[in-house]
This record gives sequence, structure tokens and C-alpha cells, in this order.
Amino acid sequence: MKALVYHGPGNRTYEDKPKPAIQETTDAVVKITKTTICGTDLHIMKGDVPAVEDGTTLGHEGVGIIEEVGEGVSNFKEGDHVLISCITACGKCDNCKKQMYSHCEDGGWILGHKIDGTQAEYVRIPHADTSLYHIPEDADEEALVMLSDILPTGFEVGVLNGKVKPGDVIAIVGAGPIGLAALLTAQFYSPAEIIMVDLDDNRLDVSKEFGATDTVNSGDENAIDKIMELTDGKGVDVSIEAVGIPATFDICQDIVKAGGQVAVVGVHGTSVDFKLEELWIKNITMTTGLVDTYTIPMLMKTVGSGKLEPEQLITHHFKLDEIMEAYDTFGNAAEEKALKIILENK
Amino acid sequence: MKALVYHGPGNRTYEDKPKPAIQETTDAVVKITKTTICGTDLHIMKGDVPAVEDGTTLGHEGVGIIEEVGEGVSNFKEGDHVLISCITACGKCDNCKKQMYSHCEDGGWILGHKIDGTQAEYVRIPHADTSLYHIPEDADEEALVMLSDILPTGFEVGVLNGKVKPGDVIAIVGAGPIGLAALLTAQFYSPAEIIMVDLDDNRLDVSKEFGATDTVNSGDENAIDKIMELTDGKGVDVSIEAVGIPATFDICQDIVKAGGQVAVVGVHGTSVDFKLEELWIKNITMTTGLVDTYTIPMLMKTVGSGKLEPEQLITHHFKLDEIMEAYDTFGNAAEEKALKIILENK
Repeated sequence: MKALVYHGPGNRTYEDKPKPAIQETTDAVVKITKTTICGTDLHIMKGDVPAVEDGTTLGHEGVGIIEEVGEGVSNFKEGDHVLISCITACGKCDNCKKQMYSHCEDGGWILGHKIDGTQAEYVRIPHADTSLYHIPEDADEEALVMLSDILPTGFEVGVLNGKVKPGDVIAIVGAGPIGLAALLTAQFYSPAEIIMVDLDDNRLDVSKEFGATDTVNSGDENAIDKIMELTDGKGVDVSIEAVGIPATFDICQDIVKAGGQVAVVGVHGTSVDFKLEELWIKNITMTTGLVDTYTIPMLMKTVGSGKLEPEQLITHHFKLDEIMEAYDTFGNAAEEKALKIILENK
Repeated sequence: MKALVYHGPGNRTYEDKPKPAIQETTDAVVKITKTTICGTDLHIMKGDVPAVEDGTTLGHEGVGIIEEVGEGVSNFKEGDHVLISCITACGKCDNCKKQMYSHCEDGGWILGHKIDGTQAEYVRIPHADTSLYHIPEDADEEALVMLSDILPTGFEVGVLNGKVKPGDVIAIVGAGPIGLAALLTAQFYSPAEIIMVDLDDNRLDVSKEFGATDTVNSGDENAIDKIMELTDGKGVDVSIEAVGIPATFDICQDIVKAGGQVAVVGVHGTSVDFKLEELWIKNITMTTGLVDTYTIPMLMKTVGSGKLEPEQLITHHFKLDEIMEAYDTFGNAAEEKALKIILENK
């Protein structure tokens, strides 16, 4: 079969690899029908995730058809149409019992990281019973690719950790796919105002279409001053950090009001300066997290009811065998106006 | 009347001042019977709290007898025996309606800070109806002085913000009065293990008497290594920072387990290095806060039932007119083995 394989920083090839086989009785092998590329994959390509070994197939998102299951798998059978969670969960360890699947003692984020991932014709999914989800018959599988990672990430780590409530004023710093996923799912809870912050006017325009009430281009103006002005000097109830750099963390800690929430969603590569000399007295709550994907079933229902339209995030389509070009397009997202790319395995 | 008055960094006198009078209809004037000195008063004396003006009477804790009330006060009358909250709350603003009295728009921490405080024979209490508490007839008023500030602070900002649960392993970094208040009140929730960290062996011995299961002298050994060893490499469910310096914040962020809580109670004068490159993935929750004192009635009931014995924190007694000496003793707390000092106005 063909797979997109990492060969050290800056080096990837679309190459032949052996089709994966069942290794444990709890495994399933899934034939990928659609997959995508994540910002995290670009981080891996830059060498930011050293745990990824040369020879690993990348990718942790996708949908497909079950090709084969181990004898210990009971929830799925050959031919089932499934959504793959970016998080593999054994379902049995202490962390899984708390629904903190991100820290599964025999899983977590391993696909396209510690084991071969989904940017291939086939993928082996460990702990299939607790790491796959049935796709309803009438569902648009392409839209559901967005539920493998980015929508649950924006929702769980941004909106739910941030405790967005009706009437809240919230700011989302970063209007990439994750920030936009937070924007879409924040609206489940009817906040009064959603201020989106980014450097890219195109993404801010998209944010407006997706329901933002205000946008701030932090390259054109001081985002902190502007947000304080927009909130009559009060600051926001919830700030959601969806980039992963000190500058965006700074905006989030400076705009939160007393008693407010700062939800850190970004993947951070360095420490940040946390202004405790100002914030110790402000009764704030700050959260961090890798997604657990425990909300995938909930999000599927909102897609079914039409409340959530994940396909809004899809800007580009490629065939799986065009994935080398798709990476180039995604790596040049601002110029290409790319959000999420669908790769189809036909 | 006599009062302990701040005259700039390093300068305090016990001097004559006019007895306070009712200024607003919602005021009460209270004759202090017992008061105490807080670590915050020492910070003020060092010049760390520049908002305190020359001429201000210090102190934000105490009990007393109502001398006079404004005509708008309905919950209290002359002769009532009352506990003074360190937080003044109007009860009417948006923050007060959320029980976030610390950020009352016409109050908050103002006693001994922005207005004259409790280290005097008499004190004016604004918004008396929502800033004073009736003392039950059979109560030990001396013990209740501990409920003006330190017990609610350790409880609300440490234990409740930290969501201490039955069976948890918790660490409290700092065994001063606030850390010990957290230790006493954490036991309401039956954690399995409470590890106390301090540099002072006497305070660690006191911690053991107060219910700590383990103690770590962070001057003698690496506190992080020791706590990881005590927790089989897992870290703690909750770490409570009760000092207010970068070194103790560091311990707290390094020992928290995935999914855990870091409750910052300390008053911080500088920013800290927040290791988001390690913690973004750990699903932690970090909280900060000034006490709201909304738990004073709850804590009074636990004192009444014998579940909480705040008098354990009292190590020294002075007359109010010995307050200059009392400050010296409290300022030399380690050598004097001082925790809380009661000053009696007779």
C-alpha cells in the first residue's frame, strides 16, 4: 500500500509500505476513505516532535471502512463505516475510566506519532472498540473527518474547559482550524460576543461568516487595547488561546476579567511568562489540555441535527496520491487560503 | 483612640487617632475586642503594597462589639458581637451577586489597605450588613479571629479552587498560617495523603500535628524529587501554592499529575515561568484568587461542630497596646515559632 512517510525533519515521501495487519486481538485494520493534514503534522515535519521516528506514517484523522478486526473486538466488524479518533484509548486504565483518554496508559495520541498513522491506504487502530466510532448511515463522511481531532479539540479544550456560558463575552486568539472549531462550537452555548483575533484578514473574514461578532487583526492594531475597548475596559469572561506561542498567551492573560477563564488550546514549544503579580488577585482559572475526544458522539449528534456544519472548514480536496502536493498547499495556508484539506483514497 | 499606623516602609507607630464615625448610612463602627497581624501586614511594612498611604491604620482581621450603626444597616445593632471579614462587600454589584466579594466594585480588600483597618480600638466597617457576621453566643471569639481571613483563604483559594476530593493525594507548598489553614480545611474532604513542604522544621512538625501525612523540608532535599518518590512517580492530584514566590510556584507546576489542579494562594510580586511546553498536554487546571470570604458562615458551623479548631493556629497573645512588640515577634516568626498572634483590646 501507499503511505506518507516521515524521514526526519523536512523529509517526507509518499511510498510503498506493507499493509498493516492485526497485531493484538483488540486491533482493527481500517481502509481509509478520507483523511486530512493537521497543523501538528507540519510541526512534526519541522522536527518539533522528536518522538516521531524516521519511517513513521503520519496522520491522526480520518474515516474509513473496517477491513479486519482482532478476535477481541466486539463493537465493530468487517465492512463497518467508522470515524477514527486521533486519541487511542484502552478504556481500562485509571485515566480512561475518568474519560481522560488523552492520557491513556496504553494509548493517547499515538497515531502518526508513535505508531503508523492515517495518511495511508490502510491503518491499524489499536483498542478499536474504544477508539473508533460508528458513522451513521446518512452522514456525510467528509464532514466527519473534522471530528477526529480539530472539532473535539476546539470544543473540549477551548469551549468546555473555558466554561463558555450564555451571555459571555469571549475572545478566541487564533483563527486557524482549531480556533475556528472553538468558534463554531462556542455557539452551542450562546455567548453574547465572540471576538476573533488573528494576523490573517482572510481567516478573520471567515470568522465573521462563522459567527464572530468582532474581529481584531493583531498585526494592524494592539489586540489587548482593542479588546479592552470593545469590552468597555472590563475584559472578557473567557479567552481561548489557539495558537501556541508566548505572544498569544500574553494576549489571553491580559484580556481576561476578574473571575474569568483562560483556556489554553495551543501546542506550546516554550515556557511563557505568567503574570502572577497581576493575576494572583484576579480569581482566574487557567486550563491546558490535549483533547480526550470524549465528545465525538455528542458532536456527531450536533452534526446530525444541523447545529454544527463541520464541512465549513474544508477548503481544498486532493486525492490521497496527491498528498505530497497537499502538504505544500497546507504548508502555505495563508496564501492558499487553506483551512482543512480532504484527501480521498479511491 | 489608639491605632497601629503605617508611616511608609519600615515605619509604624502605635498612636492616637480620632475614633471613627459613621460616614455612610450603611456603615457600622465596631469596638475591636481581638485582632491579629497578617503576613500581608508585613508585606505592607516592607513597602510591597504601595496603595497603602502614610497614615493608614493597618489590619483586616478581628472580632468586636458593634458601637454604632448607620440608619441603613438592618442586620446589626449596637451591642452585637461580630466577626469582621477581611473583604468588604456591597452585596449589590455584579461581582458581589456572583459571591466574588473580593472584587466588589465598592469594596474588596480595603480594610488596612485603602481605608483604616482593625489594629485599633475602633474600626469603621462600610457595607456592614454584608461585611460582618454574627458570632454565636457560646463561641470562642478568639478562635473566630482566624475566620476573618486565613481560614477562608486557605479553604476557598486552596482547597475549594483546588477541588480536593476524597482519596486525593495533595501537596501544600508553604506551612505558614495560610498553608496550615489549607491543611486543616482540606481534611473536610478526606484526601488520602497530604504532603506539606516548607523550609522550617518547626512548621513541618506543626503540620504533622495538624494532620499532614508526609512532610518535606525543601531546604534539606529536592522537594520535587521527594514528592515524585512519595507518589510513585505519579505526582499529586492537587498542589497548593501557599507562599507567593517563583520557587514555590515551580514546585507546584512540576509535581502536578495529568488532569490535576494547581491552586495558587500566595501573593506574588513577580511573574513566573510557566512551563507550558510541558503542561499544555497535561490537562491541568490552575487557579488564582483573592479570598471572597463567602465560606465564613460555613466555617463557623464547622467550628461549632468541633470539626475545625482554628485556635490551633494561635501561638502568641499580646495586649493591643503591646502591638509594636507583637509586630517584632511576628516579623521573626521562625525563631519565635509564631503562627498567629492574638491582640486583645481591654
